[in-house]
Amino acid sequence: MDSPNRTDFLAGLKPGGKYDNILGIYRHNTSADQIGVFDKEIIRALAETGTVKWIAHNGAGYDQIDVSECATQGITVSNTPGAIDDATATTALYLILSTLRHFSKAERSLHAGTWKSPISSGKTHDLTTRTLGILGLGGIGLRLAHLVHAFPMRVVYYSRHKRTDVPEWCEYAESIEALCQQADVLSVHVPLREETGMKRGSIIVNTARGKVVDEEAMIRALEDGHLSAVGLDVYPNEPNVNPRLLAFPQNALLPHMGTENQDSQRQMEVRALTNLKDYLRDGRGKDVVPELRSRL
Amino acid sequence: MDSPNRTDFLAGLKPGGKYDNILGIYRHNTSADQIGVFDKEIIRALAETGTVKWIAHNGAGYDQIDVSECATQGITVSNTPGAIDDATATTALYLILSTLRHFSKAERSLHAGTWKSPISSGKTHDLTTRTLGILGLGGIGLRLAHLVHAFPMRVVYYSRHKRTDVPEWCEYAESIEALCQQADVLSVHVPLREETGMKRGSIIVNTARGKVVDEEAMIRALEDGHLSAVGLDVYPNEPNVNPRLLAFPQNALLPHMGTENQDSQRQMEVRALTNLKDYLRDGRGKDVVPELRSRL
Repeated sequence: MDSPNRTDFLAGLKPGGKYDNILGIYRHNTSADQIGVFDKEIIRALAETGTVKWIAHNGAGYDQIDVSECATQGITVSNTPGAIDDATATTALYLILSTLRHFSKAERSLHAGTWKSPISSGKTHDLTTRTLGILGLGGIGLRLAHLVHAFPMRVVYYSRHKRTDVPEWCEYAESIEALCQQADVLSVHVPLREETGMKRGSIIVNTARGKVVDEEAMIRALEDGHLSAVGLDVYPNEPNVNPRLLAFPQNALLPHMGTENQDSQRQMEVRALTNLKDYLRDGRGKDVVPELRSRL
Repeated sequence: MDSPNRTDFLAGLKPGGKYDNILGIYRHNTSADQIGVFDKEIIRALAETGTVKWIAHNGAGYDQIDVSECATQGITVSNTPGAIDDATATTALYLILSTLRHFSKAERSLHAGTWKSPISSGKTHDLTTRTLGILGLGGIGLRLAHLVHAFPMRVVYYSRHKRTDVPEWCEYAESIEALCQQADVLSVHVPLREETGMKRGSIIVNTARGKVVDEEAMIRALEDGHLSAVGLDVYPNEPNVNPRLLAFPQNALLPHMGTENQDSQRQMEVRALTNLKDYLRDGRGKDVVPELRSRL
């Protein structure tokens, strides 16, 4: 894909164009910088080729692809689940460490030449014996559970269904409210949109997507002190970061680094390309996103 | 201890002074801000009281106390080993995460408004399957071994003696050189003064004391690229930080935060005060520092 913009890309898909006769697409989110996300317009143009039947997306999240339109048009989408669990859970662990211990704040103080004078150890905690609430115990959440169990933190989770395939020290909460009432740190892996009655002084960590947490409500909770800190890797309107988040020095704010390391990047790339290769060779590949599985 | 300076403190120890008839001392490193470290002069003044026989130091490291002079003068020193293992190992884990994944650099980039543009995922790694070399497998080193085993990292250690009371996945290296040749990250818990043949691109993490690593050699290794990063909580001349360390954005530099959290602070305080109480009540307390144990 060497198109500098959407117009060039769409033209290339036409009969005789440079993308004529393409059977499948390997897609990376960085392509959005040139041609934008895979919205209805792009999906329909792909469908009109009559040849493109598979989009092998590199990434676990595929919110940049209109999968409902793909279903209508008969195009299958695969993603790379699992490959990013380790790297993303590691990012969440970093944010938990930093917000509980105020490490990020301390680093900035050192760089500013003020050593540790803004740090009050009375406001910080070790992870050991504290409770991590995991909202959504999928691959990333379960991986994070194992990492913090080493301390150990107490692990409580809420999912729509209690999982029977997880260690017994993963305690199930009957509701989001019950989860939030117990959590010292809440790590979010599914949408969190409502008042959930978190404990005063607790921490929210988000490595999923910026829009799964109501940012305005979160900032209000920081301002009134109900939340002691937030650790974020994702934001509603990336790469823009709400400047009000920067006003709380105890926050740890990463620029969507969840999977940014060569090991994970390689795993994701290999997995996405394997899905595409399988489709081209066998007529079907793995990792089809849930919305499109019924079509198979 | 309310003395604003050393002169006042020494005067207070004289017969009839405000510290007359003190039997034991609870000591915190912050006292050095007023009266300086417990050097020969202070130890001798304490000995001259004829009553002070126990210094219950709050902290694992007691390099601010001249224990050799204490031995000469018949004063016992206790410290707080173990109480700081968890907090310090957690700090080392944070530095490992940050230097392998360039998280600290990424946070600074976000604050500077440049999102993640200075980050190259090709230069970063996940912890999983990488090798952590632990130089000195005491309480902190072993605690760190357990935390990184959760990923797992491979764990190799060197101590003067092979430990038989550690899990079998803690592999023993026969020499410092053998350790360094295998380590992707070396975490230092004992003096490291000589050329040790570390792998190109490896990382040093130091949460022990600044002077255990030759800073000049370490900076040269950063400059010539042999070390890819360092994660430091301690420096030779605190609170001063060598500005050349700040020139490497991939470094993670904390202002000696190893035990700075309320849980560890409380544990250390309770342990130091318990040692003092035991001495006052029973004539002997626990946690006597090794150099003075033969006297008991």
